[in-house]
Amino acid sequence: MRYRLTVSYRGTAYAGWQWQANARSVQEVVEAALGDLAGVAVRVTAAGRTDAGVHARGQVIHCDLERPLPPGALIHGTNFRLPEDVRVLAASAVRSAFHARFDALAKEYRYTLVRAAVLSPLDAWDALRVSPRLDLAALAGAAAQLVGRHDFAAFALAGAAIPDGPEGTVRTLSRVECQEDGERITLVFVGEGFLRGMVRGLVGTLLEVARGRRTPEQVGALLTGAPRSAAGPTAPPHALCLERVVYASGWELDDP
Amino acid sequence: MRYRLTVSYRGTAYAGWQWQANARSVQEVVEAALGDLAGVAVRVTAAGRTDAGVHARGQVIHCDLERPLPPGALIHGTNFRLPEDVRVLAASAVRSAFHARFDALAKEYRYTLVRAAVLSPLDAWDALRVSPRLDLAALAGAAAQLVGRHDFAAFALAGAAIPDGPEGTVRTLSRVECQEDGERITLVFVGEGFLRGMVRGLVGTLLEVARGRRTPEQVGALLTGAPRSAAGPTAPPHALCLERVVYASGWELDDP
Repeated sequence: MRYRLTVSYRGTAYAGWQWQANARSVQEVVEAALGDLAGVAVRVTAAGRTDAGVHARGQVIHCDLERPLPPGALIHGTNFRLPEDVRVLAASAVRSAFHARFDALAKEYRYTLVRAAVLSPLDAWDALRVSPRLDLAALAGAAAQLVGRHDFAAFALAGAAIPDGPEGTVRTLSRVECQEDGERITLVFVGEGFLRGMVRGLVGTLLEVARGRRTPEQVGALLTGAPRSAAGPTAPPHALCLERVVYASGWELDDP
Repeated sequence: MRYRLTVSYRGTAYAGWQWQANARSVQEVVEAALGDLAGVAVRVTAAGRTDAGVHARGQVIHCDLERPLPPGALIHGTNFRLPEDVRVLAASAVRSAFHARFDALAKEYRYTLVRAAVLSPLDAWDALRVSPRLDLAALAGAAAQLVGRHDFAAFALAGAAIPDGPEGTVRTLSRVECQEDGERITLVFVGEGFLRGMVRGLVGTLLEVARGRRTPEQVGALLTGAPRSAAGPTAPPHALCLERVVYASGWELDDP
């Protein structure tokens, strides 16, 4: 029986989502908890591979269990076995063709900035401090240029392999927003897929615009396959969160 | 020279604001940092004494320094000596008559609820999980009854001494709000002063209304000096935050 699980985690203590030989990954602790519950090794596949230190509010994974479990028992049995910085928020049995990564219609990432002279300890773990003098209108102008189908090579993690497939480094962003709430600023990125490190590369470049070091037009000019060195620095991971993953309806089965 | 400092802290690792003999308090680490910076013992006085585990975004304190310091140097010199879960956000020299507690016109506390079957690890440290089926309209109706001048004895920490002064357990709340943002609910309490444990006692009682166990009218009937046992339980501290303290303008001196 195939299951879809919504997983949330604080990325602070992890080397990222993906299994690694010498460091603890979120995937590793999720597979360990599910395997202990099922009594047999379980492999999971995630919608997206978050980097070290990146958080998730709504990562989505799929896995196959030989012995079906009611979703409630699967949620609580897994959470009982997980460390407290990882939790399964929801689960449902899905058709066996469902694939968490290939069937994702859109992913939403959020990057949190706080405009302040000193960052509150209540924000420091999941937000980046920026100057109160940031030019948000310029930032929003540059963000608007990113929407659409572009070659985002300039923003991908330096040294990362170019993805296989006809798309290469071309991706489509359907929404990029700069939401302001007092001193808190949330940068929202929605797209079908993202290159490795792409959101953080975009944020680092948008911040250069907000500081008056680039124009919004110069950011637009990077969207034609410019080299990584032409864009801004990679913003730190702790302020980034995979907010949610969107799928078509109709994958869920009735409770098994 | 007297200074007013805005201090923010994660209360998780502290036995509350106030100095205690056998446990680490926020006051203790703030006084230690200021004393190390000033080269002489420094005592501080806070607007309000937050309980163990309660956070502050905008606690306000005052202290006297023999050798005046520019506010920027005071902020950064203190933060350099503080643990990372406590930060001075702002500082200014004030008239010597200023008193952080007696001159506070209002304090704002916020209590955070999340309506979800499972709480995300991103929220667990500063929010209380509640059922998605909570009756928020009833909660808001009961909250509205709290506004005004009442005897809040029923909501003060059990066993706490009745405060000195003609007010006794009478306090005035100028604003009580239930703000809804998706699954996140923020209960806002604004008043001149609060009894010890009062916000958490109010929250515990409002939650009983939201669960259908009390009517809003029954909460109103508690506001005439009913005993502590007549109200609901004390809500846990980790979801409570002292958001800000309001003073009249005109206390600040120009930079010394």
